[in-house]
Amino acid sequence: MDTNVPLYKLLNNMNYEELEELAQKIRKYIYTTISNGSGHLASNLGVVELTIALYRIFDPVEDVIIWDTSHQSYVHKLLTGRWKEFKNIRKKAGISGYTNIFESDADKFGAGHAGTAIAAALGFFLSDKLKKRKRDIVAIVGDGALGCGMTLESLNQLNYQGANVKIVLNDNEMAISKNVGAISQLLNNFRVKKEYTETKKALKSSLEDSSVGKDVENLLKKFRDALKYSFYASPAPFFEDMGIKYYGPVEGHNIKKLEEYFKFMKEYNEGPVLLHVVTKKGKGFEEIENAPIKFHGISKKDDKISYSKIVGHTLAWLKNYEFLAFTAAMSSGTGLDILQEISPDKVIDMGITESSVVTTAAAVSFGGILPIVDIYSTFMQRAFDSLIHDVALQKAPVLFLLDRAGLVGEDGPTHHGVFDLSYTRLIPNVEVWTPLDAQDLANMVYTSVIQGIKKPRFIRFPRDGEKISVTQILENLKIVNGEWRFLKKSESDVYVLAVGTMAQLVVKALNEFEVNIIGVRSVKPVDDFVMQVLAEKANYIFVYEEGSLKGGFNEEIYKLKNKQIFAFGIKDDFVSHATREEQLQECGLDIESIKKNFEELFLKTDIGTKILRRR
Amino acid sequence: MDTNVPLYKLLNNMNYEELEELAQKIRKYIYTTISNGSGHLASNLGVVELTIALYRIFDPVEDVIIWDTSHQSYVHKLLTGRWKEFKNIRKKAGISGYTNIFESDADKFGAGHAGTAIAAALGFFLSDKLKKRKRDIVAIVGDGALGCGMTLESLNQLNYQGANVKIVLNDNEMAISKNVGAISQLLNNFRVKKEYTETKKALKSSLEDSSVGKDVENLLKKFRDALKYSFYASPAPFFEDMGIKYYGPVEGHNIKKLEEYFKFMKEYNEGPVLLHVVTKKGKGFEEIENAPIKFHGISKKDDKISYSKIVGHTLAWLKNYEFLAFTAAMSSGTGLDILQEISPDKVIDMGITESSVVTTAAAVSFGGILPIVDIYSTFMQRAFDSLIHDVALQKAPVLFLLDRAGLVGEDGPTHHGVFDLSYTRLIPNVEVWTPLDAQDLANMVYTSVIQGIKKPRFIRFPRDGEKISVTQILENLKIVNGEWRFLKKSESDVYVLAVGTMAQLVVKALNEFEVNIIGVRSVKPVDDFVMQVLAEKANYIFVYEEGSLKGGFNEEIYKLKNKQIFAFGIKDDFVSHATREEQLQECGLDIESIKKNFEELFLKTDIGTKILRRR
Repeated sequence: MDTNVPLYKLLNNMNYEELEELAQKIRKYIYTTISNGSGHLASNLGVVELTIALYRIFDPVEDVIIWDTSHQSYVHKLLTGRWKEFKNIRKKAGISGYTNIFESDADKFGAGHAGTAIAAALGFFLSDKLKKRKRDIVAIVGDGALGCGMTLESLNQLNYQGANVKIVLNDNEMAISKNVGAISQLLNNFRVKKEYTETKKALKSSLEDSSVGKDVENLLKKFRDALKYSFYASPAPFFEDMGIKYYGPVEGHNIKKLEEYFKFMKEYNEGPVLLHVVTKKGKGFEEIENAPIKFHGISKKDDKISYSKIVGHTLAWLKNYEFLAFTAAMSSGTGLDILQEISPDKVIDMGITESSVVTTAAAVSFGGILPIVDIYSTFMQRAFDSLIHDVALQKAPVLFLLDRAGLVGEDGPTHHGVFDLSYTRLIPNVEVWTPLDAQDLANMVYTSVIQGIKKPRFIRFPRDGEKISVTQILENLKIVNGEWRFLKKSESDVYVLAVGTMAQLVVKALNEFEVNIIGVRSVKPVDDFVMQVLAEKANYIFVYEEGSLKGGFNEEIYKLKNKQIFAFGIKDDFVSHATREEQLQECGLDIESIKKNFEELFLKTDIGTKILRRR
Repeated sequence: MDTNVPLYKLLNNMNYEELEELAQKIRKYIYTTISNGSGHLASNLGVVELTIALYRIFDPVEDVIIWDTSHQSYVHKLLTGRWKEFKNIRKKAGISGYTNIFESDADKFGAGHAGTAIAAALGFFLSDKLKKRKRDIVAIVGDGALGCGMTLESLNQLNYQGANVKIVLNDNEMAISKNVGAISQLLNNFRVKKEYTETKKALKSSLEDSSVGKDVENLLKKFRDALKYSFYASPAPFFEDMGIKYYGPVEGHNIKKLEEYFKFMKEYNEGPVLLHVVTKKGKGFEEIENAPIKFHGISKKDDKISYSKIVGHTLAWLKNYEFLAFTAAMSSGTGLDILQEISPDKVIDMGITESSVVTTAAAVSFGGILPIVDIYSTFMQRAFDSLIHDVALQKAPVLFLLDRAGLVGEDGPTHHGVFDLSYTRLIPNVEVWTPLDAQDLANMVYTSVIQGIKKPRFIRFPRDGEKISVTQILENLKIVNGEWRFLKKSESDVYVLAVGTMAQLVVKALNEFEVNIIGVRSVKPVDDFVMQVLAEKANYIFVYEEGSLKGGFNEEIYKLKNKQIFAFGIKDDFVSHATREEQLQECGLDIESIKKNFEELFLKTDIGTKILRRR
């Protein structure tokens, strides 16, 4: 295969047998690459034929193809000139695991979070209209993203704005967790109601042929059924009510069939149109087909137990207390599946609807139940207004578990949780707790459930873990508060503040120096006692936080008067995909860099002379 | 009338004549109070009968009644024990213009932003289920809020979560601007298609009666129509597809009729149910009925021209340049109606869908058109993730006009725009400009349109205005950059930094002192030249900003080494409703307070001795 020409340009010269061969080749390449690295396997195996057929009809460079969330864009990448680079997908300096406008002309809109594609498609339509540019605009949206507020509100706009946008609904019968919500039930019902298609056919021919035969009663029954299925079991009216022409469903692994439908779509120019494609996640590899959740995203294994799992086990341990845990389609990623397994009623999965989840939780707290909202730091950005308007302003005692807070590794800049310290610290009435390690995290969760909380509380922890025994952690659970902890005491006037788990690295890096090291366990409120100590005794303060420096914890410390302050954290920029370790290094937050930068600062200033090395 | 007993307790002892009288009395009271003060008139006049009928069937204290947005909750307030206090609605120390859980037991969930009620209702349902508590949960949602992402995603959850939530769709045929989107078209179509009801009746009886007569052809035609109307013209299938039982529509000013339907709703306990009520905004006052937009919110008049209008006029002046201006249902409030009137195609109203608007704008910029997104600072909080994920990460050159940035007066804490300096400053790749006055604002808009922009740019300005001539401003338009401006130069080592229009107050307050006063016109990036001057020459720095101190501009300044810094802004709390002037005073940001606090700080420190008074 000549890999210098982008593959999509060759598709129309291939026959169906060759296309099938290509599909198999792609499937194997993705399988081998991802199962030896990390990434989204099942969803990409599910769209091999879909992508091939799509690029026989639409041009990924001349037209605008937008992959919602874009975790399923690997086939797209392989077909649009990134065959060789695919080997290094999600690796440092390799291609991204998501679409990225800076990576290729075929990536028209980047993503990572779900539900943005239709809003973006509308934007492309509006600019094309003004520029009198003729090209097709296609958005490929998964059934999970269909229930997002942004998807729904944008769908509702298309017809009103007269937008000729073409939507491919990639219905793979599951989002990351089991899909939730009425629309997905609608899709489900529809798939099982095979008789619908026949009834529809009968109805259609009857309506077109008014010279009716004798069997009126039978006919009426058919009408009744048709009405029933139309109202309750077909997704068509739902979309057509929004003024979106509906085609489908079509089997998503039949290239020829798909092509036919894509042609319909291409030719339809009277407004928005949606094609309902039914695919199977993990298609082609039986092992994967049978366990798609496990294979949604593959991460590299190590023998640490993740902080997510610590949370899950702690909540499971507390199952007899009264609380409700909420997830936004991430029960497995957040570790809530551990609780769900033994106490399914305690976990509410509302799908990818973060802002609704947060507002619902506020109301749950007013009903006297402790709501626990477990959402990744990056996704919580979507609920920012709900945090302010529904939770903080009303002092609703909601416990937030901000998972993946900090650098997340291979998923890259769309997924980093580096803004939460800044965006929570600015909200009045809230507490922001930052556990130092797994036991501390478990204790904080334990304390919040056992004692209840008086105001909104965030507990944030990174995408990391520890080599520890869960049993031991559960046996050592104890009530804690947010006091900061002296991890190393000294007579020196140098104070090192490390936020949350960053303290582990800082202790390793700086333990040999004659300094005070303090583990910051609460960014809001700050620890008044320690702040007083700092005000009185510190001359030099070093701050380390795994979060954006702009608006971060360090800015609280800069308000101390007459100190020399040095802050380390994420600079005012987006950090590319790489391993978490590489990213920490890039940001100067790994053990080595912490030590090196600390030493260098010494040499440049007069601090060094005041500090004795121990060794 | 005994105003010590909450009126809602007396409703069931009244006959319909008395109820009508009460309705008229309420209507007059609201009209008199609001037209002499400020607040939402038309929407409240529209729900007088609805609220009365509702509280004959449901109990506002024992049940859970949630008013979405809650700008239409005045009748609710009058009926639930706040008749006397209503005189002081929206005034300092008076009752709030929105529901407020701290104000009354009948206010179960506070609001101000649209689209939260159904998410909240779901939360109450979940906690009641766990607590085995029996009460009805009712959400009253306007047709404008129906198109919000949160409303749609929460609607999609109700049936899935088995939630017995009762929704009253208050369809008053308009949101704040002309309502937009397919769902509202659906409602509109439905209202005009009177024949639908009859066809439905015919269809229903036919389906139930299989002994059909001779006129089969005619019957088929009816079926065909019924199908057509069902699919395209009734909102019922849209809701029923989501598993929500639909009743209605019912005329919203007929108390008796409304009661009947509310009874249906009360008795329906098989899941979520929605009653479609058609009301008329401003009902009862012809003048208002005819011009509902003007009366949506009534503000006190003064002879200033608002900054919103300055923006509108400037964009209208620039109408021949290529750009698209976006609003989220606020074309009048943002001043975009001025542009819309002369160039309707240049204004896109996407309804109350802030996050979709921002993402759509990002795509428009990729299409080579300058998108201008004009959204109030408080509402932009809803698009926080879109700002990061779709705009900043992709360096999409979108121009954001953050109107109502700062304290907003009578609308109170749900509406203050006090967080934007903090939540934009933390985002990489963006510029945040803060014009000093009307001319500066117009110049910044002018510059951005004429020159285009290279990265996302925010221009933020408060809910205020100036006594100026628009013509003069337009005649003096010029290209500007974000450099800070010395408003007063001195040899003193005291530097006063005032962000944006705050500079006007600071100059008035401190002009008599021998200090340097600098107007900060760009919070991000900072002005390197002036920062260098500060680093070299300043010993004392005063910062004034109309925004939250946490994460605000002041924290940028605290990073300067070896300075005495004093920052004034919004403390870490929510500011209650009052006039904007009272709020500025409360926050120490009015001329008098600025001067007083400045003087006091002098006396306490040694700065005073270094400064000479001029007079």
